[in-house]
Amino acid sequence: MQESNDIDVLVSEVGPRDGLQSIKAIMPLAAKKAWIAAEAAAGVREIEVGSFVPAKLLPQLADTAEVVRYARTIPGLAVLALVPNFKGAEHAIEAGAHKIALPLSASETHSKANLRKTHDEVIEEVRRIAGHIRGLPAGKRPGFEGNISTAFGCTLEGPVPERKVVELARRLMDAGVDDVGLSDTTGYANPAQLRRLVKLVRAEVGQDRLTSVHLHNTRGLGLANALAALEEGITTLDSSLGGLGGCPYAPGASGNIVTEDLVFMLDAMGLRTGIDIEKLLAVRQILAGALPGEALYGFTPDAGLPRGYAPGGWGVRAG
Amino acid sequence: MQESNDIDVLVSEVGPRDGLQSIKAIMPLAAKKAWIAAEAAAGVREIEVGSFVPAKLLPQLADTAEVVRYARTIPGLAVLALVPNFKGAEHAIEAGAHKIALPLSASETHSKANLRKTHDEVIEEVRRIAGHIRGLPAGKRPGFEGNISTAFGCTLEGPVPERKVVELARRLMDAGVDDVGLSDTTGYANPAQLRRLVKLVRAEVGQDRLTSVHLHNTRGLGLANALAALEEGITTLDSSLGGLGGCPYAPGASGNIVTEDLVFMLDAMGLRTGIDIEKLLAVRQILAGALPGEALYGFTPDAGLPRGYAPGGWGVRAG
Repeated sequence: MQESNDIDVLVSEVGPRDGLQSIKAIMPLAAKKAWIAAEAAAGVREIEVGSFVPAKLLPQLADTAEVVRYARTIPGLAVLALVPNFKGAEHAIEAGAHKIALPLSASETHSKANLRKTHDEVIEEVRRIAGHIRGLPAGKRPGFEGNISTAFGCTLEGPVPERKVVELARRLMDAGVDDVGLSDTTGYANPAQLRRLVKLVRAEVGQDRLTSVHLHNTRGLGLANALAALEEGITTLDSSLGGLGGCPYAPGASGNIVTEDLVFMLDAMGLRTGIDIEKLLAVRQILAGALPGEALYGFTPDAGLPRGYAPGGWGVRAG
Repeated sequence: MQESNDIDVLVSEVGPRDGLQSIKAIMPLAAKKAWIAAEAAAGVREIEVGSFVPAKLLPQLADTAEVVRYARTIPGLAVLALVPNFKGAEHAIEAGAHKIALPLSASETHSKANLRKTHDEVIEEVRRIAGHIRGLPAGKRPGFEGNISTAFGCTLEGPVPERKVVELARRLMDAGVDDVGLSDTTGYANPAQLRRLVKLVRAEVGQDRLTSVHLHNTRGLGLANALAALEEGITTLDSSLGGLGGCPYAPGASGNIVTEDLVFMLDAMGLRTGIDIEKLLAVRQILAGALPGEALYGFTPDAGLPRGYAPGGWGVRAG
């Protein structure tokens, strides 16, 4: 979703989806609502609140429809939901999601493992969803993003050819998505690769059709990649409060980039996010309370803000 | 020290100095030698091996002269030592350091707390050291860097005016250092601030007189700042194996940027460091063995290299 004119970067919180799907604990619905409300109150404008997958596969997200309905009541909040297929899309639209995102893994091996579908099958699903959306009354049509996961490499296949990512971006657009996103699902991306791939995909689908990236911090490069993305003109960055979700095969390595650290970086750089960093840091208590024993990541929450920190830029103006 | 033509970025390991001075344990001399030898064997070309401070202040570094003499025997390795004053500089030069660095804190409050000296007193010390070096026979003169610490803010004073940093860089050059470096001692820096300050200092002292930065990862922005520094044309980056040293006031927050993660980022970006990432990762075992119970940081060591990783660039060439 495009950011408004009063912010420079849209921080899209994905913790309630990507974070919660990666941990064993099931967060109670009331805690999810409190979390989402508190982040929205801190100024977060877009939240991916869940995924419409069968409850038996991801019981952590079984209440996604209720979460979407609740989040829709918060003024000014864009409510996103992940959908794996046509049926999920129907449910997401029924619940009222402002935007739905469908993941297409650049690695076909991963696609089969994750969605149990080949590339052709996923693209066909995208086409059906796009057709369904076109059939809705004008005011009822959600945004539809095709999200290319494992775009920077795959834990099953290893390197992923760039031409494959570019080709899939083209196929997603042709099948009817509004825009595409690039996901570093595996935490393999580096800043040079990210710049290159963003340029290549944009050359294929158009500058304004790729405005968001989804980064992980598995190898510590998350914020460096975010910086490179910003410098390429990317305006939406996904992140997860507390880096929630971790990374099952990498103890101590956080999963998604950490919302707190990302917002601190952006705010310190003088970029407008609309988010109150101190209020955001306080939301962490909700997570800690609702998920006892779960590891939360992030450096800024531990270290605190710099002495004398004033929101809206640190050392970036004449002084 | 300037890098050779066969590398793009000089990674300057500071763990034996900045890391060891920040922890309570005293690493035995034999372990220090093994660590330094192993990093050099992995391709690290510059190591800050210690600090010439009174043993009663920093018993961890009491054997610095011996460490310097040993490190000097390793072919191709540039040996750096930190010196707080004239006496320290004499000892460092006597031991054979290729280069000495003297820290000057941009925050005068911090300068008094750290070196017990005002700015004027530190500058006077620099002048005496520079005079001493000029009096040495040509082949015996070490390089001499003035390192501006707390350049991005101070835990005692808060924000540090940029004009103060620029003025101190000028005064250091006038007092006779060969070049200046900028240190984010407190982990306060952000990429926009770093770019701005590098430009301002260079405008004052000359492009080629500021080629190195020393970054901490206290708020998770370390590698993003490193990327911004590279993009400004900085060619020497300090880092510490295992992020050794931590940060006393920030549990879980690493101190210096982590050599392993930095080298992974640079290597993945296709930048030449001369360092074998797999050999480097193995050096961590020496640290773990010599400092039992000490926290080691870094994401890449936990997560491992990407599947199918080949040194020299990941996804940055046509594929």
